[in-house]
Amino acid sequence: MTGYKKTTEKNLMVFSGRAHPVLAEEVAAILETELVPTSAYEFANSEIYVRFEESVRGCDAFVLQSHTAPVNEWIMEHLIMVDALKRASAKRITVVMPFYGYARQDKKHRGREPISARLMADLFKTAGADRLITVDLHADQIQGYFDGPVDHLMALPILTDYVKAKYGAQPLAVVSPDAGRIKVAERWSAKLGGVPLAFIHKTRRTDRPNETVANRVVGEVAGKICVLTDDMIDTGGTIVKAAEALVADGAAGVIIAATHAILSDPAVDRLKNSPAVEVIVTDTLPIPEDRRFDKLTVLSIAPLVARAIKEVFEDGSVTSMFDGHA
Amino acid sequence: MTGYKKTTEKNLMVFSGRAHPVLAEEVAAILETELVPTSAYEFANSEIYVRFEESVRGCDAFVLQSHTAPVNEWIMEHLIMVDALKRASAKRITVVMPFYGYARQDKKHRGREPISARLMADLFKTAGADRLITVDLHADQIQGYFDGPVDHLMALPILTDYVKAKYGAQPLAVVSPDAGRIKVAERWSAKLGGVPLAFIHKTRRTDRPNETVANRVVGEVAGKICVLTDDMIDTGGTIVKAAEALVADGAAGVIIAATHAILSDPAVDRLKNSPAVEVIVTDTLPIPEDRRFDKLTVLSIAPLVARAIKEVFEDGSVTSMFDGHA
Amino acid sequence: MTGYKKTTEKNLMVFSGRAHPVLAEEVAAILETELVPTSAYEFANSEIYVRFEESVRGCDAFVLQSHTAPVNEWIMEHLIMVDALKRASAKRITVVMPFYGYARQDKKHRGREPISARLMADLFKTAGADRLITVDLHADQIQGYFDGPVDHLMALPILTDYVKAKYGAQPLAVVSPDAGRIKVAERWSAKLGGVPLAFIHKTRRTDRPNETVANRVVGEVAGKICVLTDDMIDTGGTIVKAAEALVADGAAGVIIAATHAILSDPAVDRLKNSPAVEVIVTDTLPIPEDRRFDKLTVLSIAPLVARAIKEVFEDGSVTSMFDGHA
Amino acid sequence: MTGYKKTTEKNLMVFSGRAHPVLAEEVAAILETELVPTSAYEFANSEIYVRFEESVRGCDAFVLQSHTAPVNEWIMEHLIMVDALKRASAKRITVVMPFYGYARQDKKHRGREPISARLMADLFKTAGADRLITVDLHADQIQGYFDGPVDHLMALPILTDYVKAKYGAQPLAVVSPDAGRIKVAERWSAKLGGVPLAFIHKTRRTDRPNETVANRVVGEVAGKICVLTDDMIDTGGTIVKAAEALVADGAAGVIIAATHAILSDPAVDRLKNSPAVEVIVTDTLPIPEDRRFDKLTVLSIAPLVARAIKEVFEDGSVTSMFDGHA
Amino acid sequence: MTGYKKTTEKNLMVFSGRAHPVLAEEVAAILETELVPTSAYEFANSEIYVRFEESVRGCDAFVLQSHTAPVNEWIMEHLIMVDALKRASAKRITVVMPFYGYARQDKKHRGREPISARLMADLFKTAGADRLITVDLHADQIQGYFDGPVDHLMALPILTDYVKAKYGAQPLAVVSPDAGRIKVAERWSAKLGGVPLAFIHKTRRTDRPNETVANRVVGEVAGKICVLTDDMIDTGGTIVKAAEALVADGAAGVIIAATHAILSDPAVDRLKNSPAVEVIVTDTLPIPEDRRFDKLTVLSIAPLVARAIKEVFEDGSVTSMFDGHA
Amino acid sequence: MTGYKKTTEKNLMVFSGRAHPVLAEEVAAILETELVPTSAYEFANSEIYVRFEESVRGCDAFVLQSHTAPVNEWIMEHLIMVDALKRASAKRITVVMPFYGYARQDKKHRGREPISARLMADLFKTAGADRLITVDLHADQIQGYFDGPVDHLMALPILTDYVKAKYGAQPLAVVSPDAGRIKVAERWSAKLGGVPLAFIHKTRRTDRPNETVANRVVGEVAGKICVLTDDMIDTGGTIVKAAEALVADGAAGVIIAATHAILSDPAVDRLKNSPAVEVIVTDTLPIPEDRRFDKLTVLSIAPLVARAIKEVFEDGSVTSMFDGHA
Repeated sequence: MTGYKKTTEKNLMVFSGRAHPVLAEEVAAILETELVPTSAYEFANSEIYVRFEESVRGCDAFVLQSHTAPVNEWIMEHLIMVDALKRASAKRITVVMPFYGYARQDKKHRGREPISARLMADLFKTAGADRLITVDLHADQIQGYFDGPVDHLMALPILTDYVKAKYGAQPLAVVSPDAGRIKVAERWSAKLGGVPLAFIHKTRRTDRPNETVANRVVGEVAGKICVLTDDMIDTGGTIVKAAEALVADGAAGVIIAATHAILSDPAVDRLKNSPAVEVIVTDTLPIPEDRRFDKLTVLSIAPLVARAIKEVFEDGSVTSMFDGHA
Repeated sequence: MTGYKKTTEKNLMVFSGRAHPVLAEEVAAILETELVPTSAYEFANSEIYVRFEESVRGCDAFVLQSHTAPVNEWIMEHLIMVDALKRASAKRITVVMPFYGYARQDKKHRGREPISARLMADLFKTAGADRLITVDLHADQIQGYFDGPVDHLMALPILTDYVKAKYGAQPLAVVSPDAGRIKVAERWSAKLGGVPLAFIHKTRRTDRPNETVANRVVGEVAGKICVLTDDMIDTGGTIVKAAEALVADGAAGVIIAATHAILSDPAVDRLKNSPAVEVIVTDTLPIPEDRRFDKLTVLSIAPLVARAIKEVFEDGSVTSMFDGHA
Repeated sequence: MTGYKKTTEKNLMVFSGRAHPVLAEEVAAILETELVPTSAYEFANSEIYVRFEESVRGCDAFVLQSHTAPVNEWIMEHLIMVDALKRASAKRITVVMPFYGYARQDKKHRGREPISARLMADLFKTAGADRLITVDLHADQIQGYFDGPVDHLMALPILTDYVKAKYGAQPLAVVSPDAGRIKVAERWSAKLGGVPLAFIHKTRRTDRPNETVANRVVGEVAGKICVLTDDMIDTGGTIVKAAEALVADGAAGVIIAATHAILSDPAVDRLKNSPAVEVIVTDTLPIPEDRRFDKLTVLSIAPLVARAIKEVFEDGSVTSMFDGHA
Repeated sequence: MTGYKKTTEKNLMVFSGRAHPVLAEEVAAILETELVPTSAYEFANSEIYVRFEESVRGCDAFVLQSHTAPVNEWIMEHLIMVDALKRASAKRITVVMPFYGYARQDKKHRGREPISARLMADLFKTAGADRLITVDLHADQIQGYFDGPVDHLMALPILTDYVKAKYGAQPLAVVSPDAGRIKVAERWSAKLGGVPLAFIHKTRRTDRPNETVANRVVGEVAGKICVLTDDMIDTGGTIVKAAEALVADGAAGVIIAATHAILSDPAVDRLKNSPAVEVIVTDTLPIPEDRRFDKLTVLSIAPLVARAIKEVFEDGSVTSMFDGHA
Repeated sequence: MTGYKKTTEKNLMVFSGRAHPVLAEEVAAILETELVPTSAYEFANSEIYVRFEESVRGCDAFVLQSHTAPVNEWIMEHLIMVDALKRASAKRITVVMPFYGYARQDKKHRGREPISARLMADLFKTAGADRLITVDLHADQIQGYFDGPVDHLMALPILTDYVKAKYGAQPLAVVSPDAGRIKVAERWSAKLGGVPLAFIHKTRRTDRPNETVANRVVGEVAGKICVLTDDMIDTGGTIVKAAEALVADGAAGVIIAATHAILSDPAVDRLKNSPAVEVIVTDTLPIPEDRRFDKLTVLSIAPLVARAIKEVFEDGSVTSMFDGHA
Repeated sequence: MTGYKKTTEKNLMVFSGRAHPVLAEEVAAILETELVPTSAYEFANSEIYVRFEESVRGCDAFVLQSHTAPVNEWIMEHLIMVDALKRASAKRITVVMPFYGYARQDKKHRGREPISARLMADLFKTAGADRLITVDLHADQIQGYFDGPVDHLMALPILTDYVKAKYGAQPLAVVSPDAGRIKVAERWSAKLGGVPLAFIHKTRRTDRPNETVANRVVGEVAGKICVLTDDMIDTGGTIVKAAEALVADGAAGVIIAATHAILSDPAVDRLKNSPAVEVIVTDTLPIPEDRRFDKLTVLSIAPLVARAIKEVFEDGSVTSMFDGHA
């Protein structure tokens, strides 16, 4: 046959935007490689410039960016990196977004709203993304927004292992701060060996119309160490009020646990002043020194992300990383 | 300028598949038009054939099909109708699916599952659909699966108006049969003027591992007429057990209300034998005579669908049909 | 260079829908592999659920389904399997449809008809199919409906080898049951060493308008064993009438041969009662026991399909499997 | 409501490439408009330049080009015109190709061939075509190659009306020059009131391998005026041999009729020297003076094309232009 | 015919992002309409939320945003607005970007760079844009990046009319600050009645390798009022050095004129301290009070944009707004 | 795991259209392979037929065609070859166009023009091209027209090496024949070690309106060997007038150098009769014997193209072939 043949190799390369380089470096280190040297900066008028300093032709590219504030800035950088990889002939481009920006705008509450979570999926597809890796989506349905494979990782085992090790000897309860998120709490309960479940119910007083909302604890929490769980902590209002309600209901202690630590103002102050004894999060988003405080514990998401990248590169199973959940 | 001009008109045409012609006829009647005469049948080997008996060139087409069992049959007929409209030069094709087939498969619970709800959206897009009208999606996020406008109608006012008129004088409570669907119950509660909310919590007994599930009522239901609400009733298992739990907890009566009456076996038997005094549904899905029973009340969805079609045709606001929700 | 390298491997995996598992198993056996364990079933409301029990990441997937009745059911299952493979990161997805459903609806006979054969090609593309393998399309032009490679296999050598071995010593003629399909008969004639060709001509009597159709044999068939050939046998009406006409014209015997045995009612009765001495088909479609009858001979298509899969996997030539025809 | 309103008008504009301006002018005249003034020429290196001399914003554009030799030149001009219309904001672009170039390359006879007929459909779609109007496709299946509406016109009534008027008083027969095209002859026969049908069968002599082909007349033609019909006349070899065979079989006269007069060399010489008494074609392709000869009759296709354009513009039915065929 | 008809109307609606509301209001006022009331704000974590307060169904939407710093923020808001319009059923969406963000990244200078200007075009297409209106692109080729109509407006007549009125009585010369942009200066020269042309040539000293660059004036400028022209002023370095070179060469005075006033630091200081007597720009980008200075003249681009919107809405010619240039 | 594995290989195959087979053969020879045997010819009506004589399944295909006159013919052949490769399952298709046809139509000078350069990029994408390799685009922005990787090669080093070797001892100047193309001349100047730069300025006489254009030399050329550079020579008018102007200004000699030798009439006569002493081009376009003349030097582009193909095949860096330019 005409032509000449060559055994093919694939080459894993990890790229990082500027939003959260520490996480990317940690991921690369676990993979025993290094981040591909990349130039990225803003021009005077705030347009972003990106260039990779090495040939990326034919590589299996994993591009990591954390969608932290200023989120539009970092998403645009992420898109531009994907475009540059596409035009430089990367063979496959996997977008790694430990926190999926705009995930909460996943439906139209009212007419004439955008569905920004879908828009983001389409923008990355257009730029050239072949697949996504992300952690703990706000709603599982968002997986379906991307037209291609999505590896949806769960931080749950990381968080529950920590809680079990530290608090496992005490009577625990898992509490959801909101009726809409009880399913996450159910998974926590199962992982912690079937501890009781409770949640906070926001109610309007029916006797007095237009009266403000009350936080009512549903379930038995008296005398228990309550683990308040959510997917993310943004301004912290809801979860701190929940913690207060739990204490008022006789909880022996409150621990707050969440995957994504957005920590927008005034989250840090609220959490510091809350009755919670510990706030446990992962570093899917960067947490600068000035947002760290004594009772904050930050667990590393890097081993989870690195393992998923390795499985994707080697065509292994990401699902098998979890207990029957992907 | 060269060429010749003509004032443009648009022509609304309503088409119906064979799954639920009664609903389509009712919709057409409200719109003061008729269904476009259509030939549709199966060939000997079960392939479907469709042809419209009138010119549809340039029309604003609304194609109604109810995704009832056999659901694949009716979805395929729906797709083939859209293809025929596209090739016959309909100007705009709106797919009207009062019940969105496969809506429950909207995420990957485990690895290597499909996301069939997204697949359906893409299949209709490929066939030629420009937009969708649907009623009470299983999850709001599914709106984002279709790459185009989706008018998401709510049957809530139809159901609550009926309940208010009939039971409004008695003490009511709204009950969700499942922790994951409390948000729907919240909307009911608000619509009924702030009546109390409760729900059924399925728990595993923590003292005995692997022990079966118990249905625990959370909230005050004693002495009240409980309205058990859900988006759909399929085999009826969950909702009937919930009704039983409510009665056991002292409810003065139980009413079941849901938008979509799938009523797969053995739903009818279960509902008949349940303690519920009335089962209220709409006819988004056809309910044949042999599935109707004394305490079943079927409210017509046709006025809602017809009004939405009219608003879409006349560029009005579908959102304004609801209280700040679309 | 940054990154780490790995020699790439590819992994052939064969998947089967539920329409015709026997064929898929036979294909897998010839390829010395096994079908990938798959869960597939209907929910109570007839929606299909599919899940693969093994990681398929990075595999070269061949998904086999026979589009037999209920054809919409099996096509939808086929589409859902492709979607699940796409989302589970199969590297390449080849849809194997030994019989291409809706192939006969390949043009608009009249206005406002669909072109369902093209629609099917687009639906599979949308679901995620990269390529198709199929056998004996109703019209060769259908290859062009799919936007990608199509391997169009021919059952001809399988059928003619059998006929030659069994009847080669007798005087043969090849007969087409319809003027529109003489080209297939020409290939048969060539394969059988240039035996005479004839066909059945349906004519309206010109002396009496609107008078019924007569089947006239064109060509010399007296004293010959006539091989009546077609691409498929659906209800069997045309081909059985052709057999009768041949006998009336003095044929020494009639054999019926076709690739696709749809055998919709009342094909089996017609064929049993026909003057044909043998009916030879392949198993591109499943033929349940109750549709088998004494003079029916079913040849296996599995070796052909298996060889094509192997050539596609190993980048060989599928064309070379035939005599200058693909 | 914010904004300002305006009743919409649509404006029909007809554009012509340089391949066959006479036909386009005739079409425009029937529509009582004029061709949009257009600059089109080649640069020195043979690249084509096109510009419209009037605003086309918002118009309903019909772009007519005949795919005559040099066919690649004219197809490229056609594509460039569509691109210019798209970028100049035409509202809808209908490509009018009375003869569809590359229609005969509609399948892979052997491996590694293109399917150029599908490629052309895709190229026009990419350039910006919304729909196609064409006449007498080589195979009906080609309609399915374009992803959008195709109006497939039939020249049959034009040709048969002429034949009936001129030869209707004599005994007629319709003859197909090739077994593969009998279906066209069947339509002729029906239109001419059920006159007898015959065709030419090319056979290899089975007694002497590799011996040349013979043209055998099948059907009764003795004493009849034979109308030899085909969709196109290219080099004329097949049809002229067919005419000779008819005469040898005792035909009282031979008339040749076809829609598309490609007339590649040496078609004109062959036809002139053939026993045919008249050759009837349409002007879907331009026929320059030096290719016209005494017994050639050219019927105008312009009224048919103009009427189809009018129906499309006014959202009428093109199908109704024919007897139950579109 | 079945269905009911209605004469169609179109409704022009103008929307504005938050980057440059003053311009949008001025445009709306000229069009004798108002901006559609819109809610837009950032969530605590910097994600943008947008909602239109009126029905936009069926409207002809013009969405105006100025891509000023922070450019990624405003582009993302622009995209989200387009998504919301698409999902709310706007009939046609025209993106109006008086300044096209990232226009300067329109090629790969070196390997592994993005082509961000193309990426932006694709992102807007993906979000739902049907067409673009923009002013004075950095390179004309960028028009080809968007897959649809682009109306490319020229600010030239606005600027030259002002210059002619104020300085027309004096001897003028047009000067380009860079060899690569002489074509713009040529258009200026023609518009000003054929005044002399000159430009600044940056040269490396060939006698001393690696020696710094000199700005050499090419053309006769002594005694003339020099109009230094460019498409944009970013940091102002190049154009101010050019002004100094002109003065050194004996220019009687220097005027700087550009369409886009980006004015990144330290542009304002440089311009203030430059020998230019007047700096003339348009307000395609907002110029806050603290960036305005005595010799800065800002001409309004609103009449130009408004007129283009009107022509697009009414299917007129945008080209005719200029002297044979679009 | 189910399935069977195989180490993957890739196979480079080079294909050539009929426009410039000599170049393709030379490229193949450098790559130590041969062109894949291909049948290509025109049918009588000028439609092109192409077929590859070997299996191409799974290959890494490089398809070379030179877009010389008749350019539409060769582009269409190029497209048809890509379609055939796609349908025959080539794994990756790289279109190699040493000269990019229609590159000069890269913007709308006036309304209602096409942007043919973008159209060509889209046509190749539609046909199935995964990537492009081309040489010296007319404008760098055209890279952005193709939605995928573009390897943009530079002939500059080939040309400058030759000039340096032959003329390096004499005083040189680099001259651009047109103000718009000075950037190319700047690269030449740098490559030749910083020799002086000049160019020809076309001016209208301002004293006499509508008076013809004069060619004015800008820069010092007296006594120097002037290298007149451009990307292409089409009819040669501009460059020959430039040569004459240089001589008139006292140049010691003129050399003309360009990458693409289109040489449309009357380029050869003009160049022969021009004062240029040598005309240096590459063979990106075929130069037939009758267009060659004594002072024409043709340098081979084959080594550059072959090296780029090799780098693409082996995932190396094409950028590294140049000094920081790709």
